[in-house]
Amino acid sequence: MSSSSAPATGPIHEAVAGLPLVDHHCHGVLAADPSPETFHSLITEGDVWPGSGISPFDSPVGVALRRHCAPLLDLPRHATATEYLARRAELGWREVNRRFIAAAGTDVFCVDTGYTPHRLTTPAELAGASGRPAAAAYEVVRLETIAEGVAGEGVEPDEYASAFVAATRDAVDERRAVAVKSVAAYRTGFDLDPSRPSDADVTEAARRWLAPAGTGGKADGAEEETGTPPRLNDPVLVRHLLWTAVDLGLPLQLHTGFGDNDIRMHRVDPTHLTDWLHRTSGTIAVLLLHCWPYQRQAAYLATVFEQVYLDVGLTLHHVGPVRARAILEEALEITPFRKLLYSSDAYGIPEFYQLGALAFRRGLAELLQDRVDADELSLPDARRIAAWTGRDNACRVYGLPR
Amino acid sequence: MSSSSAPATGPIHEAVAGLPLVDHHCHGVLAADPSPETFHSLITEGDVWPGSGISPFDSPVGVALRRHCAPLLDLPRHATATEYLARRAELGWREVNRRFIAAAGTDVFCVDTGYTPHRLTTPAELAGASGRPAAAAYEVVRLETIAEGVAGEGVEPDEYASAFVAATRDAVDERRAVAVKSVAAYRTGFDLDPSRPSDADVTEAARRWLAPAGTGGKADGAEEETGTPPRLNDPVLVRHLLWTAVDLGLPLQLHTGFGDNDIRMHRVDPTHLTDWLHRTSGTIAVLLLHCWPYQRQAAYLATVFEQVYLDVGLTLHHVGPVRARAILEEALEITPFRKLLYSSDAYGIPEFYQLGALAFRRGLAELLQDRVDADELSLPDARRIAAWTGRDNACRVYGLPR
Amino acid sequence: MSSSSAPATGPIHEAVAGLPLVDHHCHGVLAADPSPETFHSLITEGDVWPGSGISPFDSPVGVALRRHCAPLLDLPRHATATEYLARRAELGWREVNRRFIAAAGTDVFCVDTGYTPHRLTTPAELAGASGRPAAAAYEVVRLETIAEGVAGEGVEPDEYASAFVAATRDAVDERRAVAVKSVAAYRTGFDLDPSRPSDADVTEAARRWLAPAGTGGKADGAEEETGTPPRLNDPVLVRHLLWTAVDLGLPLQLHTGFGDNDIRMHRVDPTHLTDWLHRTSGTIAVLLLHCWPYQRQAAYLATVFEQVYLDVGLTLHHVGPVRARAILEEALEITPFRKLLYSSDAYGIPEFYQLGALAFRRGLAELLQDRVDADELSLPDARRIAAWTGRDNACRVYGLPR
Repeated sequence: MSSSSAPATGPIHEAVAGLPLVDHHCHGVLAADPSPETFHSLITEGDVWPGSGISPFDSPVGVALRRHCAPLLDLPRHATATEYLARRAELGWREVNRRFIAAAGTDVFCVDTGYTPHRLTTPAELAGASGRPAAAAYEVVRLETIAEGVAGEGVEPDEYASAFVAATRDAVDERRAVAVKSVAAYRTGFDLDPSRPSDADVTEAARRWLAPAGTGGKADGAEEETGTPPRLNDPVLVRHLLWTAVDLGLPLQLHTGFGDNDIRMHRVDPTHLTDWLHRTSGTIAVLLLHCWPYQRQAAYLATVFEQVYLDVGLTLHHVGPVRARAILEEALEITPFRKLLYSSDAYGIPEFYQLGALAFRRGLAELLQDRVDADELSLPDARRIAAWTGRDNACRVYGLPR
Repeated sequence: MSSSSAPATGPIHEAVAGLPLVDHHCHGVLAADPSPETFHSLITEGDVWPGSGISPFDSPVGVALRRHCAPLLDLPRHATATEYLARRAELGWREVNRRFIAAAGTDVFCVDTGYTPHRLTTPAELAGASGRPAAAAYEVVRLETIAEGVAGEGVEPDEYASAFVAATRDAVDERRAVAVKSVAAYRTGFDLDPSRPSDADVTEAARRWLAPAGTGGKADGAEEETGTPPRLNDPVLVRHLLWTAVDLGLPLQLHTGFGDNDIRMHRVDPTHLTDWLHRTSGTIAVLLLHCWPYQRQAAYLATVFEQVYLDVGLTLHHVGPVRARAILEEALEITPFRKLLYSSDAYGIPEFYQLGALAFRRGLAELLQDRVDADELSLPDARRIAAWTGRDNACRVYGLPR
Repeated sequence: MSSSSAPATGPIHEAVAGLPLVDHHCHGVLAADPSPETFHSLITEGDVWPGSGISPFDSPVGVALRRHCAPLLDLPRHATATEYLARRAELGWREVNRRFIAAAGTDVFCVDTGYTPHRLTTPAELAGASGRPAAAAYEVVRLETIAEGVAGEGVEPDEYASAFVAATRDAVDERRAVAVKSVAAYRTGFDLDPSRPSDADVTEAARRWLAPAGTGGKADGAEEETGTPPRLNDPVLVRHLLWTAVDLGLPLQLHTGFGDNDIRMHRVDPTHLTDWLHRTSGTIAVLLLHCWPYQRQAAYLATVFEQVYLDVGLTLHHVGPVRARAILEEALEITPFRKLLYSSDAYGIPEFYQLGALAFRRGLAELLQDRVDADELSLPDARRIAAWTGRDNACRVYGLPR
C-alpha cells in the first residue's frame, strides 16, 4: 500500500498525470438521470438485491466513488451515498457526464456500442463531453449483437453464416470500426474446440439455434421474450464468430475473467485459448480485456504470443485506487511493455471514466516511480512505459493517428 | 509487509483489538494433553513424516506459534519447539486451553461438531474456556457425518434419502444448530452436476455405496475398517446432500480450497459451483470457508451472488500474521463488506483460536488503518467494516442475537 | 516494493549475500558469441517477432538485464540494448560467461543436459567458469530426450519400454546423474491418468508413436523433419516415463507452469498430479520447477506431500529483482522451510545465473530481514531458512556432499 494522504509526487507521477489516455475499450453512459436503483445496479457486477440490506455502496468500488468522485460533485470526500445521489440528481446527467469524463483526461475513446440495455450516449457525445479539442471516438463492433440481430431478422440456417459475415462487414464499414469484440467468455467460455467449424457444422448449429423457442437452443436459465433475438450460446456458432473475426482482419477484443454471474469463471481462464491462438497466429491482434483474476495467465499469453495484448480495465475501478497498483504489478510481472493497454471499461455512469483513469494513473505511477527511486528503472524508460501503456500501444494496435 | 516490532497503533488497531469476534466456523480442542507427535500432527495439513527430519515447526505456522503463542505460556518469543512442548505439558491442557481461548477475544463460537478423530471439548466448554461472561456457543451440523451415520446404522438403499433427511432434521433440532456444513470439496470436488438428483438416482447411488466392502463404493486409496461407516464420496449422494441443505433452509458452510492431501485442489475452485448457485438462488446462504488459494474466486462469487459469503479462516493461522494482510487484501479486493466473515477454523489445539484472531485483527487493522491514513477510507467506514467482518455479518447470516 | 537505491543492509542481507548456492536446476550456456537475434531469442519465452517492432529488451527481464547485468560488462546501469550487445561481443563469450557465472556465487550446478538446440558449455565448464575452487557440477537426465533417442535409433514397439528403461539407467549411470527431469508439462500436461500403464498399453502406444510420419503420432502443429526422433507426446508413454522415474529411484524434476507457448497453462496446474502423488508416496522426491503462476498450488503440494518440493527458478529472472520478493512471499506462504529450493533455470546466456541468484538473494533477504526487524522471526531462524533454501535442502534431496 503506497497510497498516502499527500498527493504522490515525482517526475513519473507528473508525467502520468498529464498523459492523454487512449481508452481502448469503453461504453456509452446514461443519457438520462438514473434512479437510485439504476445507479446502484450500475456500480456492481452483482444485482441490486432489494431487501437484503446490502448496499452496493458498501464495497471497494462504493468507497472509491465516495472518496474520489464525490469531490467532483462539490461534495466532501467520503460523502454518504444519499448525499452523493442527491447531488448527482441536482446537477443533472449532462453536467455529471461532462465533469467525470473531462476529469479522465482521455483523448481517444474506442466504444463498444453493442450492449445497450440502457439509453446511452453515442461515441461522439462521449468525445464531446470530454471537453478536449483533440478528443476522438471510434466504434468497436460487438459480434454477438450482430449475430443475434441477423437471427432476429430471420434467416435460414444455411444462410446464417454468410449473412452474419456480411452483416459484420457492413457494420464495420458503416461505423468505421477499429475493432470487433466478442463476449464468448459469457456464452461458452474459452474451452472451445480451436478448429474452424465446417460450413455444414455451422448450418446444423444454426438450425438448432434458430429453432422456435421451446424446441431447443436456449441458454440454461436465460429467459427470452417472444420475438427477442435468441441468445447466441452455441459452441459451434461461437467458434464461427471467432473465426469470422480472424477473416475480418480487425483486432479482436475478448471479454476475459471478471464480470457478472453469467460467467463461469473457471471456463474463462484465457489459457484455454492457447490452441486457438496457435492456429490464428499471424492473423489478427487479440486483446484480453479485464482479465482479473487471470491477469497472470493473460500476461503469460501476451508474453509468448506476438498477437496477444491485455488490459485490466473494469478491474481497476472495482478494486479502486488502493489495489490498482497490486493488480498492475501482477499484470506487468513478466509482460513486454508493448503488451499492456489502458481501458476503463466504463459503462453507464461517467464516474468510471474518471475512476478508471485515476486508478490506472496512480497505480502505474506508484509502481514506476518506486522503481525509478530504487534505481531499478531509468527515468526515460519509466516515461516510455507510461506513454506506451496509456496511449501508444493502443495507437499501434488499432492504427490510430497520434 | 507492514508488520513492525512496535505494536501497531491508531484508532482502527484499537477498535479491532477490542472487537468481540464471532467465530463462525471452528472446532473443539483436545480435552487431553497431546503427545509431541499429536501436537505436531495438529499444526500441519500434511502428515508428520516420521524419519524425514522435517519438523512441522519449521514452517510459517510453526514460526508463528513460537513467536505469538509462546509468550502466553510464559516463554520468551521464539522459544524452541522443545521448550514450547515442555512448558505446554507442564501447564496442562485445561490451563493451556483457557489461556489461548481467552486471548482470542471471541464471544460467539459456531462449532462444527462432526469431525472427531480426537476427544474434543464440547461447544459449551469452548465458551466456558473463553472466560467471557457473554460467550455463547452454537453447533454446526456436518452433513457427511450424518449421512455416514445413517449408513453405519444400516439402511435400505431406497430408504437412504428419507433417512438422511430425517436424521439431518433431528440433528439440527436436537442441537439447535445454526448452520450445516459440507466437505463436498473433499469427497468429489465442486465440478458436480448442479441439478437435483432424482429419487431413483439417489436410490441407485445408495445401493452402490451401501454395498458390502469390496463390491464397490470405496474411495480410491481410502482404507476402511470393517464395520466403519463407508465414506460418502458418490457424486450423486454428494449432490443429494447439498440439495438436502437447500431444503433444510439453514446456512450452508462449504469447505473450499486449502486442506490436507485428500483435496484435489483443481476441483475445488468454488466457481465450479456457479450453476448450482444459480439454481439455488433465493434459498439458503452459502458460506465459503478458508478459500486459499481461491480467495479471489470466492470473492467474485460473493460479489455476484446475493447468497454467497466467504472467510479466510484456517488460511490466516497457517500463513501467520506476516501474510494475513496480503490474504485479506485479496479477499477484499472487490468484495462487498457485508460478505466477509471471520472464522478461526481452529481444530485440536487452542493456539489456533488465539493465532487466528490475532492474524485477522492485525491484518484487517493494518489494511484499514493504512487506508484511513491515506484518506482513502473514512474512519467511521473503517470501524464499520471492522465490526461487520469480525462480528455483525455472522450475526446477520446466522440470525444470532447481538 | 522494498527495493531501494541504497544496497539493502542488515545481518540477513549479509548472510544471504555470502551464501554459496546450490543451483539444483540449470542448463549450459552458449559456447559461442550469440548474434543479436540469438541473444534476443534467449531472453524471452516468446519468439523474437521480427518486424513487430517489439524488442525482447522492452520487458521486465530486459530492464533487469540492463540494470543489473550491464555493470558486470563495465557499462553504466541502464545501458541501452545496443550498447549492451556491442560490449558483450567485444568481451567475447568466454569472458562474459566467466563474469556472470562467477557473480552468481554458486557452488553446485545440477545441469539438465537434455535440451540442446544450441551448442552449450558442459557441466564441468560451468563449474570451471564460476572460478570457485569448491564448485561442482552434476547432471540431470532429461527423460524425454532419452525416450526420443531410443525411438530415433529404431526400436520395435514391444521393445520400447525395456529399451527406454535400459537407456535411462545407462544414462544415469554413465553420467552419475543426481536426478532425472521430465517435461511432461509440455507434452501432455498433468491431467493424466495416474495409474501405471500396462505393458500392453505401452506397446500399443509405442506402435502409434513409432509409426512412420504421416500415419499418426505427431504433435498438433509440430513440424518434424524426416529422420528426427519423433516428439514424445503420447499420454500413455508420458505416464510410462513418469513411472519409470519412480522405479529408477532418483529425484524427479518436473517442469511446472511458466514456459514458452508450447505449454497449455491450464493443464499444468501441479495439483492435477495429486492422485499420482498419492500412488507414488514413499518412493521418489518430486521437485516442481518454476511453478509461476501456480506457486501457491505448488506450495500446497509441498505442504501436504512429504516427497514434494518446489522452486521458483526461471520465474525470478523473468520478473526481476523488483518482483522476486512478491513471488517468494507467495511461494513461502504456507510452505515448510525444508521444501523450497533455489534454482536459476539459466539457459543459454550466463546473465541468468547472475540475475537468478541476485533476485533470489535479494527477494529472500528482504522478506526475512523485514520479519526479523518486526520481531516476527528470530535472527537464527532467518539464517537457517536462508541456508536451507539456498543450499541445504538441495543437498539433502540429492544426497550431495556439504
